[in-house]
Amino acid sequence: MISGDMSNKRRRAMAKVHAAIKDGGGTTLLSTGITGDDARLAKAAVDAGARLLEPNHPAVALARGFRGVTTMHAAEKVRHRLPLRIMAEVVEGVRNVVGDDIFITVGVPGGFTELLPTVLREEDFLLLSQAGADGLHIHKSTLPDLEDVVRLAHRYGLSVDAYIGHPDDLHTFGLPALDPEEVARVAKDMQAVGCDMIGLMTGMSYEGVAAGDIPAVIKERLAALVESVAVPTLAEGGINPSNFKACRNSGGNILVVGTSIDDQARQAVTEAVKVYLG
Amino acid sequence: MISGDMSNKRRRAMAKVHAAIKDGGGTTLLSTGITGDDARLAKAAVDAGARLLEPNHPAVALARGFRGVTTMHAAEKVRHRLPLRIMAEVVEGVRNVVGDDIFITVGVPGGFTELLPTVLREEDFLLLSQAGADGLHIHKSTLPDLEDVVRLAHRYGLSVDAYIGHPDDLHTFGLPALDPEEVARVAKDMQAVGCDMIGLMTGMSYEGVAAGDIPAVIKERLAALVESVAVPTLAEGGINPSNFKACRNSGGNILVVGTSIDDQARQAVTEAVKVYLG
Repeated sequence: MISGDMSNKRRRAMAKVHAAIKDGGGTTLLSTGITGDDARLAKAAVDAGARLLEPNHPAVALARGFRGVTTMHAAEKVRHRLPLRIMAEVVEGVRNVVGDDIFITVGVPGGFTELLPTVLREEDFLLLSQAGADGLHIHKSTLPDLEDVVRLAHRYGLSVDAYIGHPDDLHTFGLPALDPEEVARVAKDMQAVGCDMIGLMTGMSYEGVAAGDIPAVIKERLAALVESVAVPTLAEGGINPSNFKACRNSGGNILVVGTSIDDQARQAVTEAVKVYLG
Repeated sequence: MISGDMSNKRRRAMAKVHAAIKDGGGTTLLSTGITGDDARLAKAAVDAGARLLEPNHPAVALARGFRGVTTMHAAEKVRHRLPLRIMAEVVEGVRNVVGDDIFITVGVPGGFTELLPTVLREEDFLLLSQAGADGLHIHKSTLPDLEDVVRLAHRYGLSVDAYIGHPDDLHTFGLPALDPEEVARVAKDMQAVGCDMIGLMTGMSYEGVAAGDIPAVIKERLAALVESVAVPTLAEGGINPSNFKACRNSGGNILVVGTSIDDQARQAVTEAVKVYLG
């Protein structure tokens, strides 16, 4: 009795994404990290023009000092232990202050490639949807796992943005694809199982990369993704003020930026505190 | 069977405060707002040299989008509804990342001059103390209420920093004192009931105040406080990079700064987001 309602809900959510891309002349920002989960800074990001937000469980682990983690690398190792209820509360709080016109996709325990069996139950999708999420930010690494998630997400009116990685990535954040040809093939598979948006994990290490540029291989992989699917595309990983234009020029619709914005907030706090102690 | 332990606990807590004041040449910073409750930015503040932190319930209401509040003024109206358990979790998370050498005083529902009957139960003091708090940041407005809090705080090894306001303040954040003479009298009363630190709410409105200065009446009130008690003194309210030196020169030991640091973090996010959307 809710499948029509939930189709409409997901259509409205994706309309927000398409409008943001269009208004940005083909590209927009998915603001994550501290701007995804702290209502004060989510509001600041939205007031500055961000229209897509992504709270996620490793960032919330950092925000809450969960198990004492202080780096994203450490947070990735404990993120699956964070109660999913907390992510629903975060979504609800951010939604309270940014209003209905902002698209919120959420990363939750069980939605990434987790280290221990972490199951998303049907009631979890319901909870997140009722909390105000538009979509789920998914980092599964096999097509069957992704297909399971998409089916239940859609049942509760949630879109799915999912990602493609590289077999050699330090952290596994997507379906592996070795070269641009495989990126295109995997992207089409992901679109076929119903992903509403498909992203590329850049895995950028910066080594040997000229400032302001991104490695040629990443441009090729991003171009392969963009050319192979009709859904909006994303680029995530190591995007910062010096390389984002290169990323944008490669045709991705949505730049996912977290750590770089967090670093700027951190730097502002550092400078502020030093003034009073100086 | 714990009163000796708890005396020692409170003594260790106050030793952290005294050491920070001494190392700062007579003054130090109590960093609050987003640096008091978000473990990422609390860590940044501590790494920049802050040694005293203050998470509090209205700021956490803002952080969590509690009831949709987006301004401190609005947060003050709903803060008493935030479950006290959340403040204990915040303290524990911040403690996890900053370590034992940092002094943490916490503002909790029931510890301020609340609008509805909000009682701090004995088990609340125990919970906050076990969560890792060194002290309680108290804004009661009568001496008997303050005395009640101090007695139970000390029983569980928690210090108390409490404040003096003005009868005409927009929000009541302390025991009222009309003029410098009354400030001195009230401060001595507060010291007599066991307050470990005593602060002045500046109530600064900036109107007609030269940049870089604070009104003469506030200097007089702060001087009256500083001269009348032996415990460390604080100044809170409207302190920012342009007026903090004037505050410091008036003799207060601890500058309580929240909103101004929050504003700088917010500004950094605003600028960062605009880069990606520009």
